[in-house]
Amino acid sequence: MPDIALYDALSTLRAVRRLRPDPVPDDVLHRVLDAARFAPTGGNRQPWRMIVVREPQSKARLAQLYSGVWDAYARSHRALLEKAPEKTRERQEKMLRAGDHLSRHFAATPVLVVFCFNPEEMAITDAKLDRPSVVGGGSVYPAVQNLLLACRAEGLGCVLTTLLCSVEEEVRSLLSIPDPWGTAAVVPIGYPVLRGHGPVSRRPLSKLAFDERFGTAYPD
Amino acid sequence: MPDIALYDALSTLRAVRRLRPDPVPDDVLHRVLDAARFAPTGGNRQPWRMIVVREPQSKARLAQLYSGVWDAYARSHRALLEKAPEKTRERQEKMLRAGDHLSRHFAATPVLVVFCFNPEEMAITDAKLDRPSVVGGGSVYPAVQNLLLACRAEGLGCVLTTLLCSVEEEVRSLLSIPDPWGTAAVVPIGYPVLRGHGPVSRRPLSKLAFDERFGTAYPD
Repeated sequence: MPDIALYDALSTLRAVRRLRPDPVPDDVLHRVLDAARFAPTGGNRQPWRMIVVREPQSKARLAQLYSGVWDAYARSHRALLEKAPEKTRERQEKMLRAGDHLSRHFAATPVLVVFCFNPEEMAITDAKLDRPSVVGGGSVYPAVQNLLLACRAEGLGCVLTTLLCSVEEEVRSLLSIPDPWGTAAVVPIGYPVLRGHGPVSRRPLSKLAFDERFGTAYPD
Repeated sequence: MPDIALYDALSTLRAVRRLRPDPVPDDVLHRVLDAARFAPTGGNRQPWRMIVVREPQSKARLAQLYSGVWDAYARSHRALLEKAPEKTRERQEKMLRAGDHLSRHFAATPVLVVFCFNPEEMAITDAKLDRPSVVGGGSVYPAVQNLLLACRAEGLGCVLTTLLCSVEEEVRSLLSIPDPWGTAAVVPIGYPVLRGHGPVSRRPLSKLAFDERFGTAYPD
């Protein structure tokens, strides 16, 4: 079983959007799915499920839905970028081109993992606040992150996408997802076309961590 | 630097609620915080921040808020459990007793990490659906999970809590969290009183993963 040191996995997990159509062996996929299983959930209720989609017809339909949402997103994002500084524009354009590639090759991705959740099995402590709720995600995205990290260990490319949530009814109907289950993410998985994972670009710790109160940089 | 193989970390990360008051060395805490930094976020916007709380006065106030919410939760949960089968009741009661311990010792926890997020920096694709939104959490909880996994590697106990979100205004005021930032989680961190992490109890893969459509068990 391939494995990797934890800190190496965390710091080199990239969004890999260029994936080869080659199939993922069953034993490899099994380990990746099993990794998700161990994630924490509120009250250990495990209110999430994965649907493993490999049938060409289902992938083709999801690809059609995905490219509809992606095209609109990419168009509006590129319009916004026209006013951005050149460096930002270049970096963002690189991501958009990889996104274009993912969108065009979505149906050829060997595996699509659709994460579902049951809101009735969640204690959503921020449901009544006057801001967008996120707490339900606390019982789903740790599992998604576990799956991504296992892909990293196995040399598989992968990326956390949420665009298909905006056309959730079509996805639910295609995959027979019953009430009251919703969808939280779709993760395309496959071997990378290019070099795949590697060092990631993030803000320094002093920008992301504060000491005692918001705004006071944590010493890096 | 202590490290651990990825799959071992994923499968032995427990919610550890009994924590010793002994301080966490700066270099250890730095590695744990830095691990969160690498997590994926939508469009790499990194719309999350951590506040590292160690001042006794702040911890005492957070503990007071926490125990108010916890006591109400535990009371109603215990009332529900009266009708549950004995095995369920025993297992849940074990978790509740650990939760009682966490609540009573919250102020003595060496480090509390408060995760904040900025909804204006998130593309919340499920915001308009007729169900609780979770997608904002997709740009916060992967970072929380990375932090928990790093704690696991370092031999630190930790647990993902979201109860304080329900009294978010008080937390924001205490820690000077400005508009439009919200809070997504508070993670108490410290060395475990008992044995800490170890094998976790979860549903089998055939219950959590489906093949092609919802309800068809993925072969385990």
